[in-house]
Amino acid sequence: MKTFLDCIPCIIRQSLDSVRQTTADKQMHEEIMKEVMKLTADIRTDHSPPAIAQQVHRLIRERIDNPDPYHDLKQRSNRMAVKLCAELTPQIRSAVDPFEMAVRLAIAGNIIDLGAKSGVTGDDVKTAISDSLNAKIDSSAIEQMKAEVSKAKKILYLADNAGEIVFDRLLIEQLPAEKVTVAVRGAPVINDATIEDADFAGLTGFVNVIDNGSDCPGTILQTCSELFRDCFARADLVISKGQGNYETLSDENKNIFFLVKVKCQIVAADLNCKVGDIILIKSKACKSYC
Amino acid sequence: MKTFLDCIPCIIRQSLDSVRQTTADKQMHEEIMKEVMKLTADIRTDHSPPAIAQQVHRLIRERIDNPDPYHDLKQRSNRMAVKLCAELTPQIRSAVDPFEMAVRLAIAGNIIDLGAKSGVTGDDVKTAISDSLNAKIDSSAIEQMKAEVSKAKKILYLADNAGEIVFDRLLIEQLPAEKVTVAVRGAPVINDATIEDADFAGLTGFVNVIDNGSDCPGTILQTCSELFRDCFARADLVISKGQGNYETLSDENKNIFFLVKVKCQIVAADLNCKVGDIILIKSKACKSYC
Repeated sequence: MKTFLDCIPCIIRQSLDSVRQTTADKQMHEEIMKEVMKLTADIRTDHSPPAIAQQVHRLIRERIDNPDPYHDLKQRSNRMAVKLCAELTPQIRSAVDPFEMAVRLAIAGNIIDLGAKSGVTGDDVKTAISDSLNAKIDSSAIEQMKAEVSKAKKILYLADNAGEIVFDRLLIEQLPAEKVTVAVRGAPVINDATIEDADFAGLTGFVNVIDNGSDCPGTILQTCSELFRDCFARADLVISKGQGNYETLSDENKNIFFLVKVKCQIVAADLNCKVGDIILIKSKACKSYC
Repeated sequence: MKTFLDCIPCIIRQSLDSVRQTTADKQMHEEIMKEVMKLTADIRTDHSPPAIAQQVHRLIRERIDNPDPYHDLKQRSNRMAVKLCAELTPQIRSAVDPFEMAVRLAIAGNIIDLGAKSGVTGDDVKTAISDSLNAKIDSSAIEQMKAEVSKAKKILYLADNAGEIVFDRLLIEQLPAEKVTVAVRGAPVINDATIEDADFAGLTGFVNVIDNGSDCPGTILQTCSELFRDCFARADLVISKGQGNYETLSDENKNIFFLVKVKCQIVAADLNCKVGDIILIKSKACKSYC
């Protein structure tokens, strides 16, 4: 997905949220925002929104001299998610279709996206869970995903955010663990999950976990590590979480299931749905063995 | 009111709306937005939001080579308002308090603000009328305004937008016509009312009408004409419509009643109210004869 002009005011608002989130120095807020404006003035609209966000958040981290400004927030999200998921695990076990319920909960967890919204409370997540369990979802896509999971040899699961990754574990537990690799970001960007969050979610040791070598809040293959690219190439099924991964991989000729809680009009238009919808969709750009 | 950093993404969004409103050339959209970003990167946050909007909309008009890109939309708003007001005039006559009803309707008309929202339909205005007639309003402020109108020698009425100015006429008809001067913008900016719109609303000839000599979507006194500044100085009561005039005059030591339909969080916070509220408030910065 390319960047639309509509993304620009949103990226500016995100930057302001982020700058405020990461330092209380008001003079610095103004200085950094001026730099962000100059950076985005030279925006290339043939790039994806996460490619712009990557540049903007690098600039913010450098200027405030903090390589991981969302660290505390990420830890808080993880702890909140663990509490919520402790209640959900027995419900999945007794569900009529545990796989479908786990898919719905993994998508609900995608609400914990501090790029799209500056603050996400426990109540926001509880509402997202309730909405997600009751929302319409493409049941044929769930059946198709289930079938592909059972025949896949190598499954690559692309995590998105901290906190959300704890919800991802609920779905990953429904997959054949020995075939699964979970990939997180290679370095902190916004509240995206890194190895530390995968450890917290108890994924390390349970399945294979790698980082993608990149600090983009999405997956731009050419900026990822060779290890990740190799893993992506070998996977016969990719499960991709969140808008950032969708925006960067939607045009990729690959067997990908995207699980997204839709948070902006541009992505909603691209997916032909509404903001707030939960979406499970198989990649339309996939041209081989799909 | 000074510009807050939160105003920047909003000004960028407004600019994009405006650029799209005024030309279908997508290449031009991108070129102009890059220029707008560079302009706003040098934003002075001690200026008011309308001062920035003035610069941005000058740039847009120059680049698309159209001195009045909202002309058709303004005429459409005027015609829509005339139809709606034709039904409202007899209701005002039979109202328990015609002055209060006219104040409420003049504020309802302030919904026709294409700077705050890219499209305003007849249904939006009908909803605003209904909301405004039923909303809470400071009744002591209405009584105070009524009393000041009756004792004022020179009343200056600052119009805001085209379409809205037809609703303003409903209130202006409740004022002593011989004491009233209505001021409109000195040149087109967004859908702000100019002399052409005052003519359309039938104000010219009914009361004294002047333009303020400025293309700012607000009232920055030092950029207005001497004629306007003189009129402002001599008025013992100013009735000011809309956010733009509020943002530029709220710190002025002058006897001003602001009539505003609140359309953004920053103005809502400044007025200690919610977005969507209708506000009649006497200037807090007024230190003399107020």
